[in-house]
Amino acid sequence: MKIARALVVLLGVSPFAAGLFADEGMWMPQQIPEMAAKLKALGFKGDAKAFADLTGQPMGAVVSLGGCTASFVSPDGLIVTNHHCVTGGLQFNSTPKRNLLKDGYLAKVRDEELPNGPGSRVFVTTSVTEVTAAITGNIDAKATDRQRYDLIDRRIKERVALCEKGGQRCNVASFFDGLKYFEIAQMEIKDVRLVYAPAEGIGVFGGETDNWRWPRHTGDWSFLRAYVGKDGKPAVFSKDNVPFKPKHWLKIAKEGIKPGDLVFVAGYPGRTQRHQTYSQVKETTEWGMPRSIRLAQEQLAILDQLTKQDKALALKVAGRLQGLNNGLTNQKGMLEGLVKGGSLAKKQAQEKELEAWIAADPVRQKKYGDVLPALRALQAESDKTREQNATMATVTGSSSYFGAALTLYRLSLQRPKADIDRDAGFQERDWPRIRDGQDRLQRTIDATVDKALLRWALAPAAALPAGQRILALDQAAGLRPGMSKAETDQAIDAFLQGLFEGSKLGDRDFRLSLIEKSTADLLATKDPFLLLAAAMEPALEANREASKNRSGAYARLTPRYMEALLAKAGGLVAPDANSTLRVTYGQVKGVDAKDGLYYKPQTTLAGIVQKHTGEGDFDAPQVQLDAIKAFQSGKKTPYIDAALKDVPVNFLSTVDTTGGNSGSPTLNAKGELVGLLFDGTYESVASNYLFEPVTTRSIHVDTRYMLWNMAEVDGAINLLREMLGSEADISARSLAPQAGAAAGAGR
Amino acid sequence: MKIARALVVLLGVSPFAAGLFADEGMWMPQQIPEMAAKLKALGFKGDAKAFADLTGQPMGAVVSLGGCTASFVSPDGLIVTNHHCVTGGLQFNSTPKRNLLKDGYLAKVRDEELPNGPGSRVFVTTSVTEVTAAITGNIDAKATDRQRYDLIDRRIKERVALCEKGGQRCNVASFFDGLKYFEIAQMEIKDVRLVYAPAEGIGVFGGETDNWRWPRHTGDWSFLRAYVGKDGKPAVFSKDNVPFKPKHWLKIAKEGIKPGDLVFVAGYPGRTQRHQTYSQVKETTEWGMPRSIRLAQEQLAILDQLTKQDKALALKVAGRLQGLNNGLTNQKGMLEGLVKGGSLAKKQAQEKELEAWIAADPVRQKKYGDVLPALRALQAESDKTREQNATMATVTGSSSYFGAALTLYRLSLQRPKADIDRDAGFQERDWPRIRDGQDRLQRTIDATVDKALLRWALAPAAALPAGQRILALDQAAGLRPGMSKAETDQAIDAFLQGLFEGSKLGDRDFRLSLIEKSTADLLATKDPFLLLAAAMEPALEANREASKNRSGAYARLTPRYMEALLAKAGGLVAPDANSTLRVTYGQVKGVDAKDGLYYKPQTTLAGIVQKHTGEGDFDAPQVQLDAIKAFQSGKKTPYIDAALKDVPVNFLSTVDTTGGNSGSPTLNAKGELVGLLFDGTYESVASNYLFEPVTTRSIHVDTRYMLWNMAEVDGAINLLREMLGSEADISARSLAPQAGAAAGAGR
Repeated sequence: MKIARALVVLLGVSPFAAGLFADEGMWMPQQIPEMAAKLKALGFKGDAKAFADLTGQPMGAVVSLGGCTASFVSPDGLIVTNHHCVTGGLQFNSTPKRNLLKDGYLAKVRDEELPNGPGSRVFVTTSVTEVTAAITGNIDAKATDRQRYDLIDRRIKERVALCEKGGQRCNVASFFDGLKYFEIAQMEIKDVRLVYAPAEGIGVFGGETDNWRWPRHTGDWSFLRAYVGKDGKPAVFSKDNVPFKPKHWLKIAKEGIKPGDLVFVAGYPGRTQRHQTYSQVKETTEWGMPRSIRLAQEQLAILDQLTKQDKALALKVAGRLQGLNNGLTNQKGMLEGLVKGGSLAKKQAQEKELEAWIAADPVRQKKYGDVLPALRALQAESDKTREQNATMATVTGSSSYFGAALTLYRLSLQRPKADIDRDAGFQERDWPRIRDGQDRLQRTIDATVDKALLRWALAPAAALPAGQRILALDQAAGLRPGMSKAETDQAIDAFLQGLFEGSKLGDRDFRLSLIEKSTADLLATKDPFLLLAAAMEPALEANREASKNRSGAYARLTPRYMEALLAKAGGLVAPDANSTLRVTYGQVKGVDAKDGLYYKPQTTLAGIVQKHTGEGDFDAPQVQLDAIKAFQSGKKTPYIDAALKDVPVNFLSTVDTTGGNSGSPTLNAKGELVGLLFDGTYESVASNYLFEPVTTRSIHVDTRYMLWNMAEVDGAINLLREMLGSEADISARSLAPQAGAAAGAGR
Repeated sequence: MKIARALVVLLGVSPFAAGLFADEGMWMPQQIPEMAAKLKALGFKGDAKAFADLTGQPMGAVVSLGGCTASFVSPDGLIVTNHHCVTGGLQFNSTPKRNLLKDGYLAKVRDEELPNGPGSRVFVTTSVTEVTAAITGNIDAKATDRQRYDLIDRRIKERVALCEKGGQRCNVASFFDGLKYFEIAQMEIKDVRLVYAPAEGIGVFGGETDNWRWPRHTGDWSFLRAYVGKDGKPAVFSKDNVPFKPKHWLKIAKEGIKPGDLVFVAGYPGRTQRHQTYSQVKETTEWGMPRSIRLAQEQLAILDQLTKQDKALALKVAGRLQGLNNGLTNQKGMLEGLVKGGSLAKKQAQEKELEAWIAADPVRQKKYGDVLPALRALQAESDKTREQNATMATVTGSSSYFGAALTLYRLSLQRPKADIDRDAGFQERDWPRIRDGQDRLQRTIDATVDKALLRWALAPAAALPAGQRILALDQAAGLRPGMSKAETDQAIDAFLQGLFEGSKLGDRDFRLSLIEKSTADLLATKDPFLLLAAAMEPALEANREASKNRSGAYARLTPRYMEALLAKAGGLVAPDANSTLRVTYGQVKGVDAKDGLYYKPQTTLAGIVQKHTGEGDFDAPQVQLDAIKAFQSGKKTPYIDAALKDVPVNFLSTVDTTGGNSGSPTLNAKGELVGLLFDGTYESVASNYLFEPVTTRSIHVDTRYMLWNMAEVDGAINLLREMLGSEADISARSLAPQAGAAAGAGR
C-alpha cells in the first residue's frame, strides 16, 4: 500500500521524515486537504479541500446508522448501505409467513416502504469542532485522578447539553487518547424505512464460510429511506412524514473501477488500538483474546446444541450466533496476526524505540520519562482484579433477563438526580434509546437460551478463589468457595429455577412498564431478576467507581504518552478510530495473501456459479442463476467490465478500515460511488493493533454488481430510475422478461 | 497447458488436424520419440529416443513399488519415492516405544536399514512387447461372448506363464480398451529396506486438510534400498543379501526448476477413464460416485466414533481413515468437475459428434454404426443388477475377517485345478502375494471395527427388495424381506455375535495355517466366517460368471469403439492409464484456480512457518522450525532459489498424472531429478474422465527442499554423499550443529 505517506504537520506535531504510522490512515476529514499533492499524484481529479467540508459534496452525503455507515444516493433521501446492516430491520418486518431475511424485499412504490424497527436511526454529521481547551484546559496539576475524571466528565456533559439545545444530537469525542477533544453535532433522523434488500442467497452469499475471506461473492447491499416531518425536521414515524431532502447525495459512477485505481472510503470506523502501549496490547494478546475466543466457542457450542432441533429458536438467536462467529473469526485473526504475524513483537520494538528516544534527550526525559512506567504500573494494577471483573461482566452480559433488570434498576437510581449528575448513558437524552432497546429485545429474548447461558456464566463465578468472590452473587445463589461440583450444580440449578420461574421480564409490555418506575416500585414487583440486580448493584457501583479512578489516571497520563508518540513519529498521523467520521484512501489491488497464493483484485459472476451448491451458505436464488446464464449466453448489460469480460462482483483495495465502516461508500477519483465497503480479509484484522500495509486489504461490493442485480434479478427499476435518472433506461432495456416476472411474483 | 499437441501418427491411426485428446497424455515411452520436435521447442536438450529405451537412461532408473512409483538415485540401489508410499513400512517397523511414522527414521549405516515389511516389492520394467495378434487374432467371428472371454483369458495366461519361465514377473495389459495388448516383463526385487523418512510433521505436513490442495508444503519423500542375493538376482530377505546395482540411476539436478521450465514425469499411473462411453461416465456420475461418497461418509462417521476415545485403535485404522478421506475428497472433486465443471456435458457432446461422424459416411456407418447402441444396451443391462451387486460387494468388502475367509476359501477351491485353469489372481504366481497379504493384515485387523463396519454393510442388504435379495446371506443371517427395523437389528446382532465369537481369523498364525488347506479342512475348522464364505460362494461365483460374459461382450465391442474414436480423433493419442510405465511432460506453471484466486507455481519455507500451529495437521518439528529460523537469519544453503529468495518447497506443473504416479521422479530438460510428483489439485481430479488443460495441475515436492531438509534438519549426510558424491560437501558445510545433534539424538 503505497499511499498516504506522511508529508505535513497537523495538530501541532512537528514534521518528521518517516513515521511509525506511515502508509495507513483513517483520516479525519480536515486532514485530507493536507494531502492534496499526494492525492493528485494518485489520480485524484477533485479539490482535496472538499473533504474537509462536512456539509458539502461528497461528505454531506455520508451518514451513520450507529454501528454502520451509509450514504444518500438520491435527492429523495434514498440511502444505500450493507445488507448486513439491515438484518434487524428485515427480521423486524418478517412474519412466519413472510421471511424478508430469506427472500429479500423490494418496495415498488413509496407506500410499501416499511418502518425499519425501533431504534433505527440515521445520523448526519453537521459539524466537528475542536474543544480540547474547554475539556482539559485549566485543570489543577494537584487534582486527584478522581477529581480530574469528574471535571472532564462534567465539562463534556455540559457541552453536550448546550450543543443539543438546538435539537441536534451531540457528543464530545476523545482523539489521540485524550490529547484532543472534538465536539460532533449530528442531525438524528428517527423515521427510517426499509426500501430494498436482495434475497439472503445474494446479500449473505458465502455466509459464515466466506466471512473475512477472499475470494468473495457477496451482494452486501440494501436500501433505506430517511423520512422527516413535513417541516423538514426529524420526527418519529408517522404516515404523514415525507422523504428527507439531503443537500448532497452521491452520484453513481458511469465507469467502474479497475486494478490500480484510486478509491476513497468515507465512514464511521468504530475502534482501533494502534496507539495502545505494549503492555496493553500484550495483556489483550495473552489474556483478553484467548479468553474471548474461549468464551465465544463455549457459547457457540451451547447455542448450537440448543438450536439444532429447533428452527424457531435458531431464527431468534441467528443474530447472536452470527455475532459470536464473526467475533470469533475476528479475534482468531487478530491473535494470529499479533503472535504469529509478529505484530506484538513489532509493537514491543516500537515501544523500546520510543523509550530510547525519550531517554536520549534530557528535556524529553523530564517531560515524558515517567509516563510509560506509570502506564505499565496502572496496567499491572488492573490486571490484579481482571479475572473477577471479567467474570462479573460475563455473568451480567450473558442473560438478557438479567441485563434488562440491571438497566431498569440503574435507570431508577439515576432518574431522581439532576441530569448533569446522571451517569453517561442514563441521561434524559438516552432514555428513548433505552426504551427502544427494551422494545427491540423482544425479537431475541428466550428463556431457554437465557437460562443456559446464565448457567454457563455462573460456573466460573462459582469457581473464583476465596479472595476474589463476587459476594452478592454468592449470597443470592447460595454459593461458597470449596463447594463440590455436585453441590455447585445443585445450587445453580435451584437459583436459576427461582429466577426464571418468578420473572416476567421476558414480556415486552412488562419491561416497558418499568421504565419510568421508581426504585421502590421496581423492588415491589418482587421480580427475582430485579431483586438480584438490586443485590448486585453495590458491587457493580464499586467497580464503576474504581473504573472512574482509573480513567482519571489515564486522563492524566495518556495525553503525555500520545504527545511523545506523535512527536517521535512526526508527520501527519491519523488518530485511532473512535466512531467519528473518517476518510481513507488507497488503490484497487490484489495481494500475495499466503505463501503460494495470490488474491486477484476482482471477482465476477462466474464465481457465483462456481461456488453455488444450492444449500447452506452457497444457495444463490434460481432467478439470479438464470440471469447469469442469460448473461453468459450473450445477453447485453451495461455493467459488464471490458477487461474481465464479466460483471464484477467484489473487489479488494488497500484502504484502511475497521468495524463500523460497513456500508461505507467507496468513491472513485471523481468522488462518485463505485462500491460499498463491507469487510476486510482475515489477514487484515490484526491491523486494528498494528497496520501491516503488505497484507491488509478491504473488501468492497462493486456498484456494477448491485446495479446488474437490481436490473436483471430483482427488477428494482424504480430505484434505478431514482438513482440514475434517464440513464436507468439503459438498465431497463436490459431487463429480462423472466427476471421482471420473477421479481414481481416473488415479492 | 500448451504442450503435446498431436502431430503424428501412432498405432495405425491416420493423422488429423486437431484431436479430441490434444494437450494431454500419459504417453507410452515408445510414443515419446515421435514428439522430438515439439520437445525441442519446449527446451528439451536430450535425445527423445532415449525415453523409448526402457533399459537405458533415464527410464531404466524408474521403478514401480506396486501402487506407487520410485526411482534409483545411486549405483547402490538407493531408491527415492514419496513418504506416503512407505506408510506401511514405517508402521510395520514401529513399536509402542518407537513410532517411526511420527518421528521419522534415518539409517546412518547400511546395517540400520530395516525390512520394509511383507509384500514390499520393487518392479523394474525390462521390456514391453506388443502381443495384440497373439491375444485377439484369429477369434472366430461366431464365437459367443463367453468363448471370446475364455480364449483371451487363456491366451494371456499362457503368454504370462511362458514369459515368467525366465524368473521375471510378467503381465499382459490391454491398451485402448482391448484394441491393443502389450506384454510387460519386470524384474521383481523382493528384499526392500527402509532407509530414511522424515518425521510426520514434515512428510505429512498439511495432512488431510491440505490433501489435494494448494498452496502445499508437504515433504513427501522417503528412501528405500533394493537388495538382491549375492548372485545379483532377486531373493527374499536375507542378511547376506547385497545392495542391488542398477544399470541406471537418476542424477540430482544442480539447478532447480523455475516457472515455465519443461518437466517430465515418468511413472506408473493407475487408471483413467477418458475413453469411456458417455453412458458409462453418466452411470458413474449419477449413481456410482454419489453412492461411493455416501458410503465413505458413513464409514468415516463410524470410524471417527469408534476411535475418538481409543488411541491404539486410531493408529490401527489410520490407513483406512486416510484412504477413505482421500477417496472421498477425490470423488467429490471428480463429481464437481463432471457435473458443475461441465465435463459430463462435454463428454456427451463429444459422443454426439462421434456418432454424427460415423453416420456421415456409409463405410464408417457399416463398420461402427452398431457399436455405441450395443455398448449402451450392455450398460443398461448391467444397471439392472447394480444395486444388488454393489450391496454384495459392500458386504464382502466391509470386513477384514470376512475378506480373509473369502480369499482363503476361494484359494482352496482353485488350488486343485491345473494352473492355467485357475482364476487370475489365484494362480501359483499369486500365492506369495496372498500369503503376504494375510500376514500384513495383522497390522490393521480389529474385531470392534470389523463388527461395526459389517453391521453397517448388512443394513442395506437387509433392505433389498424381494426380487434382488442375496439369498445365501438372508439364510445365514436370518433375514427376510419386510422385517421390521427392530427384527432386522436383532437378527443382525445375533448373526454378528455368532460370527465374531466363533472366529479365530483375527489371528495371524491361524490365517497363515489355512493357506494351503483343502476346502474340506477349511470347513472342518467350523470357523463361522469360513462357513459364511462357503455359503456365499455360489452367489459370488454366479456374479463372476456374469461378469465374464459381460467382459466377453466388451472385448467384442470396445476395440471397434476405440478404433472409431481414434480414427476420428486422429494424431497421436495416449491410451488410458493402466498401471504401466508412462511418460508425461509439461511446464512448471501456476493456475487461475478459482474466480479471484491464483495459485502461484511455487511455495517456500516461509509458508511452513505461516501454516505451523503446533498441532494436528500443521505440526512441524522444532528442529525444522529452528533450521528455518537459522536460514531466515542468514545461514547459507546451496538450495536457496535466487528468484524466490527462499528454499522452494512444492511446485505446480501441467503434467498429466493420476493415482499410481505418486513418487514418480520429476525430470528437467536434461533428464535430471528436480522433484517428486505426489499429488494433484482438487480442480484436477475430474481429469481422470476428461482432461481440462486450463485447470489441471500436478503437485511436486522440489528436490531442493528434500536436500535442504536432509542437510539441515535430518542430518542425512550419508545419503547426500551417496547421491551427490563430492558435491555433498557443500551441503555438509551448511550443516548446523543443532540440526545434526537433534537428528542424532532423536533417531
